[in-house]
Amino acid sequence: MKVDGKQMRPIWFDKDTETVQVIDQRFLPHQLIIRELTHVDEVIEAIQEMVVRGAPLIGATGALGVYVILVQEGNQGMDDAWFSRQCDRLKNARPTAANLCWGVNRVQAKVLEQTSHDPRVQAALNEALAIIEEEADNCKKIGVHGRVLIQEIAGRNPGKPVNILTHCNAGWLACIEYGTATAPIYTAHDAGIPIHVWVDETRPLNQGARLTAWELGKHGIAHTVITDNAGGHLMQHGRVDLVIVGTDRTTRAGDVANKIGTYLKALAARDNDIPFYVALPGSTFDWDITDGIRDIPIENRDPDEIRYVQGWHNDEITQVRITPEDSPAANHAFDVTPARLVTGFITEKGVCDASESAITALYADRFKTDV
Amino acid sequence: MKVDGKQMRPIWFDKDTETVQVIDQRFLPHQLIIRELTHVDEVIEAIQEMVVRGAPLIGATGALGVYVILVQEGNQGMDDAWFSRQCDRLKNARPTAANLCWGVNRVQAKVLEQTSHDPRVQAALNEALAIIEEEADNCKKIGVHGRVLIQEIAGRNPGKPVNILTHCNAGWLACIEYGTATAPIYTAHDAGIPIHVWVDETRPLNQGARLTAWELGKHGIAHTVITDNAGGHLMQHGRVDLVIVGTDRTTRAGDVANKIGTYLKALAARDNDIPFYVALPGSTFDWDITDGIRDIPIENRDPDEIRYVQGWHNDEITQVRITPEDSPAANHAFDVTPARLVTGFITEKGVCDASESAITALYADRFKTDV
Repeated sequence: MKVDGKQMRPIWFDKDTETVQVIDQRFLPHQLIIRELTHVDEVIEAIQEMVVRGAPLIGATGALGVYVILVQEGNQGMDDAWFSRQCDRLKNARPTAANLCWGVNRVQAKVLEQTSHDPRVQAALNEALAIIEEEADNCKKIGVHGRVLIQEIAGRNPGKPVNILTHCNAGWLACIEYGTATAPIYTAHDAGIPIHVWVDETRPLNQGARLTAWELGKHGIAHTVITDNAGGHLMQHGRVDLVIVGTDRTTRAGDVANKIGTYLKALAARDNDIPFYVALPGSTFDWDITDGIRDIPIENRDPDEIRYVQGWHNDEITQVRITPEDSPAANHAFDVTPARLVTGFITEKGVCDASESAITALYADRFKTDV
Repeated sequence: MKVDGKQMRPIWFDKDTETVQVIDQRFLPHQLIIRELTHVDEVIEAIQEMVVRGAPLIGATGALGVYVILVQEGNQGMDDAWFSRQCDRLKNARPTAANLCWGVNRVQAKVLEQTSHDPRVQAALNEALAIIEEEADNCKKIGVHGRVLIQEIAGRNPGKPVNILTHCNAGWLACIEYGTATAPIYTAHDAGIPIHVWVDETRPLNQGARLTAWELGKHGIAHTVITDNAGGHLMQHGRVDLVIVGTDRTTRAGDVANKIGTYLKALAARDNDIPFYVALPGSTFDWDITDGIRDIPIENRDPDEIRYVQGWHNDEITQVRITPEDSPAANHAFDVTPARLVTGFITEKGVCDASESAITALYADRFKTDV
């Protein structure tokens, strides 16, 4: 999408320097800093430290990470066992994201079809770039399908903006283009439907206040930042027409792992009869599990992400401590919203109910080829 | 309660200087700063800027504020109309807190029973101090009644700490002694029952992370700070036994206005069959209204409380901006939890169900005298 008139993506392969480049999202919205990833350790660090974040982007970064493993300095003596170990390290960088394993596995398989170094490098790059274009295309399609839902609401309330609440950042920064949760928003806005977005700030790392607000502002979409506490109150008072969130991993039965706090918004949406949709590409479904609360591992991150808040002060990024010095904190990064609270999924293949039968029917062709 | 071994209250009348003194809670947990309130404008500012906050403490501050009106410099030419106008200004300092009107009205009535200045001053001081001692006593009784609930849970899980989640700060800093939501916690802890408290940070002003964590730490109670997003996940995984929150205003039918986000926790507690209690003194009931969502005015505060976060950096209080410079924010300070989601009320008179019949039965004597 556009940033100050210039087309940008959160990750790209620079053909001139033959390097992988990413936006360092930790500095947004205050500074736009680009980083080069030239070693698998840098790729892992970028994923773990959330230089890059968001399910599809993590998948894309993992995919290009396999290319980085093949071309990084010091890998001259590599054998298949070493290569496999590096791929495993990459896959374990963040435990909740289904796309990471998926992206790495897909490129790794293409690499292992080749037996010598240069074809392997080329295979890795080709497959990673193919994944990236597929993700971009998926998001575009999610936008087209999701726009219909927004159009319906707009049709019922002529002249009034459609109020959409979203949690965290499932925008283009988390994907490649359009985003997942934001794809219907961008697509509807670009089609002239009046939109206003309630942006949950999304503690602890404030991806909503920092990234979603930045994205929407750069695209000229009306939005208001709210605390994570506020959504229920707004829904009670008829100020939310629709909730759309992304997901890091969704079971085949429709249980949705997403940024911590998503479950609370789903409960409030249900209590106030407001549709609650989850936007995702097929790559985010985990076809091996059904019970998300039992089976999706939830990442525990550094408690200092709770104890400290990062922001802009005196023209630089500054961290302030909000808790007493000796108070401990716990940082569960995700929660699971049970399928019973989800109105439906917006995917690249269309919209479906949150049930195993509806999901597997929508991806029937996938089952024929992949499973 | 105790702070570094010294008994403290958040507000007191200093007999030597004949002044009202308060802890400036905006600087906690980083600095313990005491302010003197010698003019009604300072009292109003202290309430609006949240130097003091919390329903019972706001009531106590309003009550002593009437005394301040009578003794402040420049009031020599005061007449009853001027006095009444100043009391009205005080009552309007924060719209959601039922206790503020209640405290001011009660002292104002006592003042108007006297016809000359000095007896009015004395009447105001006596009545305000009486309110303060009653609030302290009420909180103590809330603790005694609430302890029984905690004891029951502890009895079912011998040797395991009782995990209690609380939102915002309804501790002694918000009251005079013990607090409301924290009174059962302090009382149970002091009785040797093992307790662990999940402390919601409570954005935007982080009263949980700043004040509740500070209070509990100073008293030696095990606690963990979490984001406002995390409670649902912890409840899903059996890590919360009981929720206790305070309230700024509760209708006679049991609808609970409390810090924004309380409603979301109540929904999660209900979804996971976890008891959700609200602790309050009788003064926080608004006997005139039943439908809280319709009838309780919700204060909209400065959006910059969302856009900026305050904390400790380089040995001073520092504010960092977390949003893009041009993104708007909305700051609804409270929400209303419908009575249907409340397991019960813990009051100075005992525990009762969240229904109009149960509440009015508990306060039957009050109706005989007050209404």
